[in-house]
Amino acid sequence: MMSTVNAKKFENAHTTAAVSSGIGMIIRQKEPVNLEFPFDKLNSFITPNDLFYIRSHFQAPELTTDYYQLRIHGAVENPLSLDYQQLREFPSETRTATLECAGNSRIFLVPQVEGAQWELGAVGNAEWTGVPLRVLLEQTGLAKNACEVVFEGADRGTPKEQPIPPGPISYARSLPLAKAVRPEVLVAYQMNGRELSRDHGYPVRLIVPGYYGMASVKWLTSIQVLEEPFQGYWQTSDYGYWDYIDGKPVRRPLSEMALKSQIARPGMYEVIPAGSDYIVTGAAWCGHSDVSEIELSTDGGQHWTAAEFMDPAQPYVWRRWQFLWHVPQKPGQYTLAARAQDATGAVQPEGHNPSHGTYVINHPLPIDVIVR
Amino acid sequence: MMSTVNAKKFENAHTTAAVSSGIGMIIRQKEPVNLEFPFDKLNSFITPNDLFYIRSHFQAPELTTDYYQLRIHGAVENPLSLDYQQLREFPSETRTATLECAGNSRIFLVPQVEGAQWELGAVGNAEWTGVPLRVLLEQTGLAKNACEVVFEGADRGTPKEQPIPPGPISYARSLPLAKAVRPEVLVAYQMNGRELSRDHGYPVRLIVPGYYGMASVKWLTSIQVLEEPFQGYWQTSDYGYWDYIDGKPVRRPLSEMALKSQIARPGMYEVIPAGSDYIVTGAAWCGHSDVSEIELSTDGGQHWTAAEFMDPAQPYVWRRWQFLWHVPQKPGQYTLAARAQDATGAVQPEGHNPSHGTYVINHPLPIDVIVR
Repeated sequence: MMSTVNAKKFENAHTTAAVSSGIGMIIRQKEPVNLEFPFDKLNSFITPNDLFYIRSHFQAPELTTDYYQLRIHGAVENPLSLDYQQLREFPSETRTATLECAGNSRIFLVPQVEGAQWELGAVGNAEWTGVPLRVLLEQTGLAKNACEVVFEGADRGTPKEQPIPPGPISYARSLPLAKAVRPEVLVAYQMNGRELSRDHGYPVRLIVPGYYGMASVKWLTSIQVLEEPFQGYWQTSDYGYWDYIDGKPVRRPLSEMALKSQIARPGMYEVIPAGSDYIVTGAAWCGHSDVSEIELSTDGGQHWTAAEFMDPAQPYVWRRWQFLWHVPQKPGQYTLAARAQDATGAVQPEGHNPSHGTYVINHPLPIDVIVR
Repeated sequence: MMSTVNAKKFENAHTTAAVSSGIGMIIRQKEPVNLEFPFDKLNSFITPNDLFYIRSHFQAPELTTDYYQLRIHGAVENPLSLDYQQLREFPSETRTATLECAGNSRIFLVPQVEGAQWELGAVGNAEWTGVPLRVLLEQTGLAKNACEVVFEGADRGTPKEQPIPPGPISYARSLPLAKAVRPEVLVAYQMNGRELSRDHGYPVRLIVPGYYGMASVKWLTSIQVLEEPFQGYWQTSDYGYWDYIDGKPVRRPLSEMALKSQIARPGMYEVIPAGSDYIVTGAAWCGHSDVSEIELSTDGGQHWTAAEFMDPAQPYVWRRWQFLWHVPQKPGQYTLAARAQDATGAVQPEGHNPSHGTYVINHPLPIDVIVR
């Protein structure tokens, strides 16, 4: 073995190595694979496919387009089974949508809670191409009392949240019919113009713009229309929250993404020169409205100043923003936080709502930096 | 609020913002603060103070040099209590030592286990300045039957591992006397030439080169010499492992860092151009010997090729290494792993030893990358 470095050899390598992305993912779980985008690398409106967060509940199934079948059944007039080619023959649409994992930013909950310890990167924005679900439902027709649609993936296993079902189950989530037939809901087969990767649901997944990522069922193989609300594991034991009727708690499925903003740069404990100008950057999004205002605090939330958007407002997608921070001369630790307002005038809440359990972490998230 | 970006304003900012480190830490726990160095940023032999991982069990105590007292007591001839100024008057030494958290790389354990989900960055290398412990023990003298030395920090709380003690306890770890009096063990007050930060143990901590980080007790306020082995919580319930005597398991405290190597670049799921040359980099270390060989596999451990060291071998510190990878033309997912050998000829184990529980994760760690 050589014990010194061959400078020439490595000098050449630098040239071609520059083509590499140079960005890896943060591992949150090794198997099944759960990977997070390093959010301080936020550099584009569209998240590249390779940097889009991966949230898996079980090992990714190995589906092929040759054997793929999508069943549309239940409370429909004409049940349908489509192979991959038949699905591709329907007219397609492309829509941009930001997906955020409902547990994103869980690491900010104090005291620490169970579950994948996502920081800021379980969120991404992509262009999705596929067939609008309502086009397929027009083919099958709907029973008169149809009220929900259940989407089932080919991924399967024994989940962990109480109450736990007695045996292995498939991943499955429902949508209210009113959301299912909206034009933005896609049975998608492409992400940013390329086939879905295996970890992102190859060959076909649902995309539900505006909803937390758990609704966009990957490896989609069954669409079942129901005449009653679906009370499956993934919307009761898991991915549920407590709502209140006259003070009495009732369990409901998580749905729309709550209004949220995040700081991309600086990162946690980043060192920033005293007296310099620093461009703070980030993104903000909302599932059911437009993000209309964005503010930054550099004193732990005591004072807020308007920041500037870099992207226009459009439904279901994030808006990146920036803020020119005139960094104080006084050294010390400073706590930055961003706060968004939506088109209805609502702002992010001051803290986490315990009724949401370990989900919906959308209060202004503190980023501590060192000014020196 | 402005809705478009003032280009001029931000153009100017870019100039001065370039002075910032631009590197933040990965949050593994928000409170108490547990932060990880983003290991793909490994760029120097010495880890800058601001990028050195932070492992806290409880909230960091707020000590001041004005009121600081270090007691040296127990099985000694002349108990001693030193204030900060008295400690600083002893001749100091500076030693370079790599500290790794015993739970570093825990995210690679499958199935997932409890505890902070460290990836690769709960390790760092710094120059530590302080008074050799043996100089202080020469002042106090030792009782004839002295066999261990217990170090206690000012941090305190109720820990989590079973069996759990009935009330709050201080953080405390012992060393065998033979290690305690070795010249490399320091009662340290500086890190890379600067005062310790609060999170790193201000104003005084122990530094035990060669041992996992848990031995280098922060906020050190008590040094107690014992005439029997210390069976405290932090070396039995936590930070312990199972050894075997004639097949019978016995609980022992974790001590020396096991031989280990890690890949810094590429990162997990990084995209690398097919047919290019890519410089794989990383580091390797060992608590009780020198690292003498380093190899890389690009096919999931089937074949191994020697890599090159960038740093010389020296006790208790890591050696960075690099490997020029001629990336195949064939696209696909490739699994990289590094494997070190020490001066005794021992190599890293093929897998994790279950007797070590959720600690000592020192097998070759797989990094999956995408070649395209």
